Amino acid sequence: MLIRVGTNKTLKGHKLLMVTPWERPNDFIEKLSAKFPDLEVRFHQLPDIDFEPVDPLPAEEWKDVTLAFTFKALPKPDEAPKLEYVQLMSAGANHVLHEPVFKDTDVTFCTANGVHGPQISEWIISTYLAFEHRFAEYLGYQQQGRWDRGELMTIEDAASKTIGILGYGSIGRQTARLAKALGMRVHAYTLHPRPTPASRRDTSWSPPGMGDPEGEFPSEWFSGGSTADLHRFLSSGLDLLVVATPLTDRTTHLLGKAEFEVLARAANRPEGKGRKGGTFVSNIARGAVVDTEALIEALNGELIRGAAIDVTDPEPLPDGHPLWSAKNVIVTPHVSGASVSYYDRVLAVLEVNLERLSEGGELVNVVDKKSGY
Amino acid sequence: MLIRVGTNKTLKGHKLLMVTPWERPNDFIEKLSAKFPDLEVRFHQLPDIDFEPVDPLPAEEWKDVTLAFTFKALPKPDEAPKLEYVQLMSAGANHVLHEPVFKDTDVTFCTANGVHGPQISEWIISTYLAFEHRFAEYLGYQQQGRWDRGELMTIEDAASKTIGILGYGSIGRQTARLAKALGMRVHAYTLHPRPTPASRRDTSWSPPGMGDPEGEFPSEWFSGGSTADLHRFLSSGLDLLVVATPLTDRTTHLLGKAEFEVLARAANRPEGKGRKGGTFVSNIARGAVVDTEALIEALNGELIRGAAIDVTDPEPLPDGHPLWSAKNVIVTPHVSGASVSYYDRVLAVLEVNLERLSEGGELVNVVDKKSGY
Repeated sequence: MLIRVGTNKTLKGHKLLMVTPWERPNDFIEKLSAKFPDLEVRFHQLPDIDFEPVDPLPAEEWKDVTLAFTFKALPKPDEAPKLEYVQLMSAGANHVLHEPVFKDTDVTFCTANGVHGPQISEWIISTYLAFEHRFAEYLGYQQQGRWDRGELMTIEDAASKTIGILGYGSIGRQTARLAKALGMRVHAYTLHPRPTPASRRDTSWSPPGMGDPEGEFPSEWFSGGSTADLHRFLSSGLDLLVVATPLTDRTTHLLGKAEFEVLARAANRPEGKGRKGGTFVSNIARGAVVDTEALIEALNGELIRGAAIDVTDPEPLPDGHPLWSAKNVIVTPHVSGASVSYYDRVLAVLEVNLERLSEGGELVNVVDKKSGY
Repeated sequence: MLIRVGTNKTLKGHKLLMVTPWERPNDFIEKLSAKFPDLEVRFHQLPDIDFEPVDPLPAEEWKDVTLAFTFKALPKPDEAPKLEYVQLMSAGANHVLHEPVFKDTDVTFCTANGVHGPQISEWIISTYLAFEHRFAEYLGYQQQGRWDRGELMTIEDAASKTIGILGYGSIGRQTARLAKALGMRVHAYTLHPRPTPASRRDTSWSPPGMGDPEGEFPSEWFSGGSTADLHRFLSSGLDLLVVATPLTDRTTHLLGKAEFEVLARAANRPEGKGRKGGTFVSNIARGAVVDTEALIEALNGELIRGAAIDVTDPEPLPDGHPLWSAKNVIVTPHVSGASVSYYDRVLAVLEVNLERLSEGGELVNVVDKKSGY
């Protein structure tokens, strides 16, 4: 573990090795040098955007390195005897859990958790609004070059509606911020109960002014690992259900036939005013959290209002698969996390951690070596 | 003008006449009766959703009426000698300015200003995000039933971008709330300068917790009536420009060839990272605020990044008009204001005003009889 003895404002004695598939971030490195005049920075560009270094770096590159910024390129433990802190460029750490330098040393690893919050929550909210405001229908009229207002009087806005967020991490929290601004009520679901203000806090990184670090947005908190717990949440009157939980053994097929039936029973929305009841389901987690066959049946049987699906099971979704043409569904090919700002945001996490290091504070997004996240 | 002598908690002596094209809001009227037990409520449904009463109400309907809730149906002044307050169901009052009961009496008229804020700001933000996240492209792949991630690495999110809002009224303010939650900077433009906190306040109605009543979201305020003032705003580095100003003589063709050129010069965005520079323009005001020919040229010549257009000039936009197929444009047929919640929201304004009346307070959304808004 990283031992921090007081402050080291200039980061004297530190050498940062950056290994990325992207080009050298000159402005950023200049800013670092101004901030930490004694920090030595080495940059190494990998040839491949797929983050797969064919040749590991020569051992001597790692010799004096104390800090690393990398995705997969890692030294053997004896190649980097001075290494203290590794800033991963990925939101998760699962790909390094079996690396000796992770499991057999006390080097601190930090993830880039939080860098996906903005773009994925934009995808969630804008697919939902695009569905409610009938953009696909109006786009069709535009392509035909004709003015047709369609079923104008049945359009619903989000104000006063309820969003349920299954998994209240960095993506869920930024989605909650947007939902709150839209005038929605927020229901949060977490595995472990969050009864106190302290337990609702999230100390992981988010862009300044974004996310929900204090856990202030939900009006109701749900939790638990049982089916009954989940069904209680799904029965809480959700207009929009966001699936934002990691894929684990216990979340595989978390939403199946029974859960869509619970949503359908709970919908119970006022009739009249052209409303079509039910919950709109948005999945940006992993395809296998949802049972695909059950989803298609729920869509085509109108147990749910519609769905926006960015992750599928199987993935890629085969050409002509019935999910592509199910009723009221938007399917995109795992693109919600894409953003040209990804690199800038990962660099921002690195910068925060270098600041904290120089001030002797605790780093952000530290991976717990026991749990692996 | 409405004389309020102290409080009248039960609204004793008051008779409310509701004249609407929609069905009787039974729950709402029950709520009113519970809140104001001495208030007498009469309800009259008009046959026509177009708000055009063919036959005016019989004069005796108005005889004892003190409060009216209506769109266009209004009495002659001598038919309603006790009338004190008219709650219009529309956001504007322009259609009643020449009515004798408006101009020749001191009856207080209030608009439903604010009822469009939620749905129109949803339309603004979600068309912008749909454009940036390439929903039209991915919808096309979905319709073909194939997995194609397209130019994934060039998608931009909204965080750290700048929105400029031309006209900071109820729609602009709710749009600012959403933009702020997205992590954007907000630049506001108003005709008259707003140098002090008090001048930035907006006392008109907005749904609870929405809008920007204190004027807290803009980081920069611009104002003025000259072309130079406007160009200074347009040069402030806008990624998204929202046109939300009323149509008047001075706002007709406010955005023309010269303004699109100013936007193009100001764009000056960092190259690389797949970015395509320029401002995305969103018009939800009135078509004639923008010069349509200049807009088409700006789109096809890539002076601007793209546009979302809900109001056109001419309107309806004729079949096959070149705006339908201009580059990077989303055109919808004047639908951004549609919401099944419209009626509920207008009733909420009425309820607030009845509360204020019962407490002897000032009404919300009062029309200034000199300015007409």
